Amino acid sequence: MPWMDYLFGPPLATDEEGEQRVGVWAGIPMLGLDALGSAAYGPEAALTLLIPLGLVGVGYIGPITTLIILLLAIVYVSYRQTITAYPHGGGSYTVARENLGNNAGLIAAAALMLDYILVVAVGISAGIGALVSAVPDLQPYTLPLCLITLALITIVNLRGVRESGLAFLLPTYLFIVTLLTVIAIGLAKTWTSGGKPIPVTLPPIPPKAEAVASFWILMKAFASGCTAMTGVEAVSNGVGAFREPSVRYAKRTLSVIIGVLAGMLAGIAYLSHVYGIAATEPGTTHYDSVLSMLVAAVVGRGVFYYITIGSVLVVLALSANTGFADFPRLCRAIAQDGYLPNAFAHRGRRLVYTQGIMVLAVLAGALLVLFGGITDKLIPLFAVGAFLAFTMSQAGMVVHWRKVQGSHSRKSMIINAAGAVCTAITLVVVLISKFAEGAWIMLILIPTLLVVFNGVNAHYRSVAREVATDLPLDASDVVPPLVLVPIRGWSAISRKALRFALKISPEIYALHVADDERAMLALEEGWSRLVQEPAKAANRVPPRLIVSYSPYRRLYAPLKQVIEDLKRAQPNRDIAVIVPELVGTRWYHYVLHNQTAAAIKIYLNLSGFRKVVVINVPWYLGES
Amino acid sequence: MPWMDYLFGPPLATDEEGEQRVGVWAGIPMLGLDALGSAAYGPEAALTLLIPLGLVGVGYIGPITTLIILLLAIVYVSYRQTITAYPHGGGSYTVARENLGNNAGLIAAAALMLDYILVVAVGISAGIGALVSAVPDLQPYTLPLCLITLALITIVNLRGVRESGLAFLLPTYLFIVTLLTVIAIGLAKTWTSGGKPIPVTLPPIPPKAEAVASFWILMKAFASGCTAMTGVEAVSNGVGAFREPSVRYAKRTLSVIIGVLAGMLAGIAYLSHVYGIAATEPGTTHYDSVLSMLVAAVVGRGVFYYITIGSVLVVLALSANTGFADFPRLCRAIAQDGYLPNAFAHRGRRLVYTQGIMVLAVLAGALLVLFGGITDKLIPLFAVGAFLAFTMSQAGMVVHWRKVQGSHSRKSMIINAAGAVCTAITLVVVLISKFAEGAWIMLILIPTLLVVFNGVNAHYRSVAREVATDLPLDASDVVPPLVLVPIRGWSAISRKALRFALKISPEIYALHVADDERAMLALEEGWSRLVQEPAKAANRVPPRLIVSYSPYRRLYAPLKQVIEDLKRAQPNRDIAVIVPELVGTRWYHYVLHNQTAAAIKIYLNLSGFRKVVVINVPWYLGES
Repeated sequence: MPWMDYLFGPPLATDEEGEQRVGVWAGIPMLGLDALGSAAYGPEAALTLLIPLGLVGVGYIGPITTLIILLLAIVYVSYRQTITAYPHGGGSYTVARENLGNNAGLIAAAALMLDYILVVAVGISAGIGALVSAVPDLQPYTLPLCLITLALITIVNLRGVRESGLAFLLPTYLFIVTLLTVIAIGLAKTWTSGGKPIPVTLPPIPPKAEAVASFWILMKAFASGCTAMTGVEAVSNGVGAFREPSVRYAKRTLSVIIGVLAGMLAGIAYLSHVYGIAATEPGTTHYDSVLSMLVAAVVGRGVFYYITIGSVLVVLALSANTGFADFPRLCRAIAQDGYLPNAFAHRGRRLVYTQGIMVLAVLAGALLVLFGGITDKLIPLFAVGAFLAFTMSQAGMVVHWRKVQGSHSRKSMIINAAGAVCTAITLVVVLISKFAEGAWIMLILIPTLLVVFNGVNAHYRSVAREVATDLPLDASDVVPPLVLVPIRGWSAISRKALRFALKISPEIYALHVADDERAMLALEEGWSRLVQEPAKAANRVPPRLIVSYSPYRRLYAPLKQVIEDLKRAQPNRDIAVIVPELVGTRWYHYVLHNQTAAAIKIYLNLSGFRKVVVINVPWYLGES
Repeated sequence: MPWMDYLFGPPLATDEEGEQRVGVWAGIPMLGLDALGSAAYGPEAALTLLIPLGLVGVGYIGPITTLIILLLAIVYVSYRQTITAYPHGGGSYTVARENLGNNAGLIAAAALMLDYILVVAVGISAGIGALVSAVPDLQPYTLPLCLITLALITIVNLRGVRESGLAFLLPTYLFIVTLLTVIAIGLAKTWTSGGKPIPVTLPPIPPKAEAVASFWILMKAFASGCTAMTGVEAVSNGVGAFREPSVRYAKRTLSVIIGVLAGMLAGIAYLSHVYGIAATEPGTTHYDSVLSMLVAAVVGRGVFYYITIGSVLVVLALSANTGFADFPRLCRAIAQDGYLPNAFAHRGRRLVYTQGIMVLAVLAGALLVLFGGITDKLIPLFAVGAFLAFTMSQAGMVVHWRKVQGSHSRKSMIINAAGAVCTAITLVVVLISKFAEGAWIMLILIPTLLVVFNGVNAHYRSVAREVATDLPLDASDVVPPLVLVPIRGWSAISRKALRFALKISPEIYALHVADDERAMLALEEGWSRLVQEPAKAANRVPPRLIVSYSPYRRLYAPLKQVIEDLKRAQPNRDIAVIVPELVGTRWYHYVLHNQTAAAIKIYLNLSGFRKVVVINVPWYLGES
């Protein structure tokens, strides 16, 4: 099918896999978009919860961000160790499963799967949301634009890893360079002005304080700010995507991503403070994002503003790509261990995991449709999944180092243990402060996925037991099957099918299900001349014609009846149903002809006949 | 599959068809919802175009509505005649095709098909749109609500005709009774107050006139108002759905529908005039629909207001049902004539046209998603399709009466000719005044559908010519096929498949595509003991094992290679590929096991091997 090549590129052999791997430059956009993009919503999410505190609230963004960056540093050091210990890709799933057991691994996997689906839906809707607030005429087309973006990202990903890296390179680096430049300019202005820079565009004056700072409010702000840390695990999970020496490339990539992210978070927090930028209430007419106000305050609403904000939007929309890079890999790992349908374990045409990509696209698309393309409320769910996965992974690493032993491993174990404790505490904080806002959904979905995983595994193990055999082939009492050929009338198609029947058995029945009397009579009258006489002339047993009238428009009921009669008469014989099928030479021919053969096969399978075999004799258009 | 019965009801035989037919009471909701529902948007559409004229504009609604009702009367009389002449259902398609030729019929069919898709999308989105303006919290869920409504209507229709009639009975009659009551109260108040009734709730004061009445503005208002006439052809198209005497029931139903519609249109126009209700600009914050303002002015915003407006919303949402009642019938008629895929000609489980319903649901769903659930702008497209179909149908009736001859038919011919001329003039008016607003889309889509129809027909005719044969069965030189069995390893499944192979041919090849060296060696080492020795012991030719290593992860390439080798060695033999297939006992087993058999069949069909037959040997879970 050439259109598949055109859309998805020609298929690749396994040997070409090495060439599809990336270095640091391509690795950052591929695995870092999610982590970097969260700089755009993490500080915003924290500041939004500080709105009731008025301008005073902005003062708290400093300590909160410091705490988040500290946490980020701990997680960074822990994940570097994970990359060393698992050079073939140590996602939270692998690390937790190998060290803490199956269910621990599956919990981490469930958390991450949900996060990847969320990141795709939320990333796209955040990007498109910002686009439509820039161009309000597009407002009614929010959802279609989201779905078109999803389709584009899906196609890019079905084409394969390298191309998707390239497609995301430019916007990612534009985002990094412009945002860091804005921060640098802001810092320079702050210093030259002695800590009191004059905003180029004045940010709106924060509303009067309606509340005083309480531990609960600050905790909620911290929990929201933690969404800035989502996506950090992507690199350790995707070590396998780097070219050799992959461990070194992966570590460098992780360092750059974390360094840039920390710089952005610190810069945004500091400049928000000195410029006095408070968040505005989302969903109101005077809403403006923190990043937008900040950039406008530092450089004004000129060309540079639009380039910066434009790259933010693109990176948000594309951060979805991290989900596409990692979800299929994760599903593959789970499927290879027998906890997901094994279709997920197969690589597709271009060495990517077609099934995983398709499932992810469908689930994210369903979320987008369900929420009409506006998914802000899903953001808190992120942090739950991310910190659950962090914690399982770090805890797994602690057990890993205990097994390895040695002085070096003792130091590593302490680092990972510190990481596990910190992320576990954060997880509890996030769960408590975000429980009512949706965190409870994760507490339902994760155990549900766990049940599904274990159910799938139990099924595969039972099938493997059932199918295993050491019995040799039974070649005794081999008799040809009874052959049944349903025919609609005399045609080149039924003629070919009957000839094939002659080749495999001497006992042939043709079944005509009548719904039109004229066709029935014509067939009955012609049977002797068209079928019986030539068969007799060639010394073959002539096929018999069975005619059955059906009050239903389907041929299933009479077909089932005839099969049951044949089975009753000769219980030990196999019955082969030959289904003549018209095969088109163009794809649209499939639409034009009823897929009777496939329908009959499914029907007979579902009917539970044990000894019925379906034989498909194709008749090609243009064959005669 | 019991869940299908639960959702769609048990299947029905053809004999039960009579019982599924309806009388006048059930016929009105079934075929009249679209026509009656358009009373809710027709006058509104006309008044919206008169907004620039201010209060003066409201004065023109009288003459415009009079013209529309006159047109309605002409169309009514014409369609009564059509029902008499075509007692088995004379849609515009049938009438135009039989009297004016294939292409004229297909043009009418294309126009109606597009209209039915539009009515479904627009009806649902109008109903949900009104719901979310009543409950603004639901605003973000506009599209999901639209899609859920679409799904519900689809399921009701898949259950069959009678049930869907019942489901729509109550809201339809509630709508008719409440709206007519409001009109009656309004008229009474007008008369008792000497033509100057005092509104209970004051309608907003119309804005100052910005323009003076021009022919162009009035023509556009008339064209928009004509959307009130859409759906009128449904009854003549659906005569077959009435119980005997169906012609009489159909005529009565049509009379009631047209009478009620005309009364509503006249009442709404007159009361708008005397209460001074001008339309408000849609999409603005102070928007309120004409019907809502009118009901509030007559009876105030009390309980009765909410019941009336509620029934309007429900009827708008359900007017979509007219599309579901007629689209599948129309597609069936076209498919029976060979201009649409013949899957459309099959009735489904419950005597309804499953394929047509599904296609309609998908297309309307696509429109809803594409426009984010807000489809106001599609309303002008309606009138084009409706009046094109009216005109073709009336013109066809003229030719029909010329053929029939006689004094009675001369009168009938004049009536239909008058109808044809009036609707043709209206069509031109609508086309000109709505061209830029979207009527041009219909001028592209209708010819496109015409090309599709004729392409489908050409294909079917060419296949019928190709397949037709009078040659008898060729029973000479019958030799068993070469049998090829792809196997993954030794298991109960491959054991069963090989045994079946023995039953149909002495020449058997087993193909193992290796991707795991251990499995390959185990199979090679065991082959002699497990397969060759038992075969020899039973005096059969032992099956040969072919092992092929595949750098691709698919087995297709090696399978194709082996088939090509076998064909080259014995060009005249058929090749039968036996695909062992694991059959689950639960539907979800299909998700858990790769559908290799189906994939191989499609692949081999697409590869264009002419003499390759696919044999499906099922292996049932729990079989051993």
